[in-house]
Amino acid sequence: MTLSADRLAALDAFILDLNRASADVILPLFRADHGLEDKGAGKNLPRDTHAAFDPVTEADRGAEAAIRALIAQRFPDHGVIGEEYGEDRPDAEFVWVLDPIDGTRAFIAGLPLWTTLIGLRHEGRPVLGSIGQPYVNEIFIGHAGGARLVSGGEARPIRVRECANINDAVIATTDPDACFDGAERGAWLQVRAAAKLARLGCDAYAYAMVAMGKMDMVIEAGLKSWDIEAAIPLIEGAGGMVTNWRGEPVGPNGGQMVISGDRRPLDEALVSLRRSAK
Amino acid sequence: MTLSADRLAALDAFILDLNRASADVILPLFRADHGLEDKGAGKNLPRDTHAAFDPVTEADRGAEAAIRALIAQRFPDHGVIGEEYGEDRPDAEFVWVLDPIDGTRAFIAGLPLWTTLIGLRHEGRPVLGSIGQPYVNEIFIGHAGGARLVSGGEARPIRVRECANINDAVIATTDPDACFDGAERGAWLQVRAAAKLARLGCDAYAYAMVAMGKMDMVIEAGLKSWDIEAAIPLIEGAGGMVTNWRGEPVGPNGGQMVISGDRRPLDEALVSLRRSAK
Repeated sequence: MTLSADRLAALDAFILDLNRASADVILPLFRADHGLEDKGAGKNLPRDTHAAFDPVTEADRGAEAAIRALIAQRFPDHGVIGEEYGEDRPDAEFVWVLDPIDGTRAFIAGLPLWTTLIGLRHEGRPVLGSIGQPYVNEIFIGHAGGARLVSGGEARPIRVRECANINDAVIATTDPDACFDGAERGAWLQVRAAAKLARLGCDAYAYAMVAMGKMDMVIEAGLKSWDIEAAIPLIEGAGGMVTNWRGEPVGPNGGQMVISGDRRPLDEALVSLRRSAK
Repeated sequence: MTLSADRLAALDAFILDLNRASADVILPLFRADHGLEDKGAGKNLPRDTHAAFDPVTEADRGAEAAIRALIAQRFPDHGVIGEEYGEDRPDAEFVWVLDPIDGTRAFIAGLPLWTTLIGLRHEGRPVLGSIGQPYVNEIFIGHAGGARLVSGGEARPIRVRECANINDAVIATTDPDACFDGAERGAWLQVRAAAKLARLGCDAYAYAMVAMGKMDMVIEAGLKSWDIEAAIPLIEGAGGMVTNWRGEPVGPNGGQMVISGDRRPLDEALVSLRRSAK
């Protein structure tokens, strides 16, 4: 069944409700003292890697529960996939993919760069997504009809910018020492050497900066599906593209990813990235 | 002449005025299209290092001019040192040290982590300092009487937290590949391996997170005096400490720096850092 414009508009409005419900749970806990739990504890993994240090906070769990409750009430036939509470009807026509706090480390460190990621699949394909930062009061939303930034009750359209080549590109990754293996780090450093400017430590907030035309490219590895899925309709709705390190569509299992606003610097970066593609 | 509590209180109130004047210039230009100028251009330096890529925006210059105008009007006998317009009576009893946009790269990339740094020296000694992030609506202020966060018209006291040892520490640096030389990067990686969690890309915003007890330590190198001076009274007022990589007071010329909320993890980190101290 195709997704009608009316139906998409209703779901687009609903994603704002979901962001608000999530923010209501998370904001009182941001910068408050809270117990941390280490999901990687006991797995005998090295410290300080994505796999080993992936703390879960009360905020993350509470927000996912609040979002799930709202979905169950409004759209009881929709499926849900979330980091905290697993999969619920993942083969439904509509499936929500949730990560209430992407950038848990930023959250723990008090930095306002963690984000709430909410994506919607229709018949297996990502069709709607939002990246929200409620402390800064921003929600970036996108679908095939376009992308916008909702902030302080006002919405304005956003779009990627042109970037003729990698030498003009502002690029980002989260943490080359912790998130990349040796070959991946080498590929990143090669792309970085050619780029105009690089920023670190942004997690999914950087995806929103590509969508609004302030950055040109984000390069990541070791991602999970819920780290990416919300970004795809946002970036594509803003005129950009999301691929793996071979330039192919990103699969449902996540992994290596490049987000780019313009095809030209992406093609140049892929020359380096492809050699370390998995 | 000693600095009386009354006089300090008046200067403390004035630093809020300076932050507002600066924000009025900068905020309309944040995320707007603006011409960039590369201070390092023509110097034949490698791309993407602190020295080579140090863009100046209209915002940075306009804000420093606005701050200087307010100081000249209210305290015509005070000196001023700023990145954009140089030194004006640097030997006066009171000297303001300004950096309206610390984290110019964050600003260019659209990220709300750039900060406005305003510090005040009395008889050569830093006595008052603020770190402001006007897009997020936060001003962190500190002096010998204490530290506070002013946000949305409300002020609340802030303080560093206890941290018994480096294994419990949340630490940060801005960019190990661009800001450290090889030996410095090695020392950082050694401290990072022992720490609980590391964050990158925060510039001076990380100093404020130490002052409010959300991070435990920040390690930087290659800093200028205006990158540090505002942080010293804030961190010390919040109960923390600022040293160079030998554990000594940071000199007026900047360079290598460690900010720590607790003495114990600092002493442990200095074992690694001292070997790469300059």
